[in-house]
Amino acid sequence: MTDIATRVYNHAWKIDPIVRSVLDTDFYKLLMAQILHQRHRDTRVTFGIINRSKHIPLARLIDQGALRAQLDHIRSLRLTRGETTWLYGNMFYGKRQMFSPEFVTWLEDFRFPAYHLETHGDQLKLTFEGSWAETTMWEVPALAVIVELYSRAVTADMGKFELQVLYARAMSRVWEKIERLRRLDGLRIADFGTRRRHGFLWQDWCVQAMIEGLGPAFLGTSNCLIALRREVEAVGTNAHELPMVYAALADTDEALATAPYDVLADWQKHYDGNLRIILPDTYGSDGFFENAPDWIAKWTGVRIDSGDAIAMAERIIAWWKRRGEDPSQKLFIFSDALDIADIERLHVHFNGRVRLGFGWGTLLTNDFRDLVPGNGLEPFSIVCKVISANGRPAVKLSDNAAKAMGPPDEVARYRRVFGSSPGIVQQPLV
Amino acid sequence: MTDIATRVYNHAWKIDPIVRSVLDTDFYKLLMAQILHQRHRDTRVTFGIINRSKHIPLARLIDQGALRAQLDHIRSLRLTRGETTWLYGNMFYGKRQMFSPEFVTWLEDFRFPAYHLETHGDQLKLTFEGSWAETTMWEVPALAVIVELYSRAVTADMGKFELQVLYARAMSRVWEKIERLRRLDGLRIADFGTRRRHGFLWQDWCVQAMIEGLGPAFLGTSNCLIALRREVEAVGTNAHELPMVYAALADTDEALATAPYDVLADWQKHYDGNLRIILPDTYGSDGFFENAPDWIAKWTGVRIDSGDAIAMAERIIAWWKRRGEDPSQKLFIFSDALDIADIERLHVHFNGRVRLGFGWGTLLTNDFRDLVPGNGLEPFSIVCKVISANGRPAVKLSDNAAKAMGPPDEVARYRRVFGSSPGIVQQPLV
Repeated sequence: MTDIATRVYNHAWKIDPIVRSVLDTDFYKLLMAQILHQRHRDTRVTFGIINRSKHIPLARLIDQGALRAQLDHIRSLRLTRGETTWLYGNMFYGKRQMFSPEFVTWLEDFRFPAYHLETHGDQLKLTFEGSWAETTMWEVPALAVIVELYSRAVTADMGKFELQVLYARAMSRVWEKIERLRRLDGLRIADFGTRRRHGFLWQDWCVQAMIEGLGPAFLGTSNCLIALRREVEAVGTNAHELPMVYAALADTDEALATAPYDVLADWQKHYDGNLRIILPDTYGSDGFFENAPDWIAKWTGVRIDSGDAIAMAERIIAWWKRRGEDPSQKLFIFSDALDIADIERLHVHFNGRVRLGFGWGTLLTNDFRDLVPGNGLEPFSIVCKVISANGRPAVKLSDNAAKAMGPPDEVARYRRVFGSSPGIVQQPLV
Repeated sequence: MTDIATRVYNHAWKIDPIVRSVLDTDFYKLLMAQILHQRHRDTRVTFGIINRSKHIPLARLIDQGALRAQLDHIRSLRLTRGETTWLYGNMFYGKRQMFSPEFVTWLEDFRFPAYHLETHGDQLKLTFEGSWAETTMWEVPALAVIVELYSRAVTADMGKFELQVLYARAMSRVWEKIERLRRLDGLRIADFGTRRRHGFLWQDWCVQAMIEGLGPAFLGTSNCLIALRREVEAVGTNAHELPMVYAALADTDEALATAPYDVLADWQKHYDGNLRIILPDTYGSDGFFENAPDWIAKWTGVRIDSGDAIAMAERIIAWWKRRGEDPSQKLFIFSDALDIADIERLHVHFNGRVRLGFGWGTLLTNDFRDLVPGNGLEPFSIVCKVISANGRPAVKLSDNAAKAMGPPDEVARYRRVFGSSPGIVQQPLV
């Protein structure tokens, strides 16, 4: 018998909100925001959406009214009581009270700041301005909203059976990948797929499939809300925005050269253990390690997010050895556009020599490739990056020239200061 | 686990169509259309919505874009194969092949003709023009769409629990009425509530409740689609539009005076038995019976749709006796704004003296009185009536002056011809 009340309720929705919680974001945002709130209250930044997949005409595919409705909904969100309880009471990375009462109180009062939306030809121009701690919170929900609106636009005209089969196929695909992962002894893998997920419910499904399919090999999810609801670990450490803003604010070339290390010096005042993970590639990983002070070699591990992962990890192992460290005690987190074959290859190559963790993103939570005609659900490469800090442009070089960003003269200056070559050029898949 | 495909499908609806089938209409429309198609192909008519409840500002409450979308959807409907099969194969009023192959073929090709929508102040002006057989098909779906859009507008902002309790209360109310009906020995009652139903699903629920609660005392429903789906009788006979159009087309006062009888003379060439039900009140019931030719007294029964039902039925019983008929073999169908107390009163008064049938309409399928703040779901009196035929105005006098319609000079002429007084004035509840 049809449940009339439920049906009326469902069909009376003004919008179907994509992001329904302040915590529907990546855990590293909270770790970073705690530092930004404590140390960088006067830093004002601009974040902006960058669609690296220029062939995807986002402004034509996504209705701007619907996008505004979603962003406005996000601006209406506030931390709930249960979410506050989780931040205070939950154990994160083996530790309770990861977040100070002062930070949680700030987050309780937090509201997403204003956004600026316009179109440039076929592309959306969506930017956010404000204090660093507030503005950074937009990154993940802004991306999740754009990608899910895109998914919805592509699926809007599909029939009931077409949709059922679409999701059946996508589920089969995820499950087949999980079955392959089960064959990897000692695997440790986490979901990093919030930002470019097909949709919230789909990410939630993928996490539940990983929980059932992988058992303890599944480390947890970067998504705080799903970690809370599914009672798994919330995982993640830090991002490029930290060195990018520190670098933008450096007054001299000398200060610029030490900016990436200043980030880590600040970070280790707050976090230890498995949270001390170096993200070395912002201005070229090789230069980073070559010039790094010795104390950095004592950090727990490295996240490899661009470039040739195997070659880079081998060079890092050699670097640890030169600095007197035991690589077998060290941790690599691989997180660059991983799919199942990459995970298998990296696991086979490094397992037993170092500790390994995989941060599996878009190709976990948004692999609908070739499942609709015209491949309309192929994931695309979109990011939300810091563009400027206190009016100064932010720059990224990366180990992949396709991921570089910033004004050309600034990019040139950074290359000179960091002794960085443009490196390889890989069109980022996702 | 959330069924993602179903959820995506549900939330990707462009509109939630209110009328989804050509057969989501009252059975009498088909009986009438068959005659119109065969006998009145050259008659062109205009139908129009009349909101007798002027205090309801329909144009302010109902979004015109949503209304157009619903009406456009209705114009896209066509008879389905299973519906055709039902028309050919089902037994109606004890008879198979009620509908000729020629008529069913016409209905297979039928599309709802164009509509004209504008606003007059707070009120909607919605009219339909075309051949009589086609245009008459708009009456029921047009009303059902307006009433359900109204219900949706009132419930649009209600919460999940509020809605659940609203429907729980409305269900309890219907069920309590059914429990009272069960105490009436020999009751025979049908659902006549399509046109002013709260919503399609709600009417469907009410019919199912009647099936379970009343067993064989439930005669069936006027709604063809629900009769088909729930495998119950489709019921109904004829409406005021027949004498109204016959009268409008009469060239002389003499022809006007016989028009109501001409309707029945044509009708009995097509239908017999329980389909020979007189609807006498179009130009005053008393005058109708006084001047009726003897053969009309042989008809099976009378439907009483306005005025004082008990007094009128008593006068009709006396009339039958004067014409040598046995009232105990005759059938009354009561259908004027019935609620449970009216049904009880009429049943107690007449049961055993005549055959009885109740056509229970709006207060079966739309009794949400006092269930929302401000009584916003109180049913209102809206009809869709023939306004003109071949350019001549259509007139109705009724036994209730509040239901009279037509240009004043024509109303005066009709009163003179039919010797009809204005009768009682009852604000129609529904």
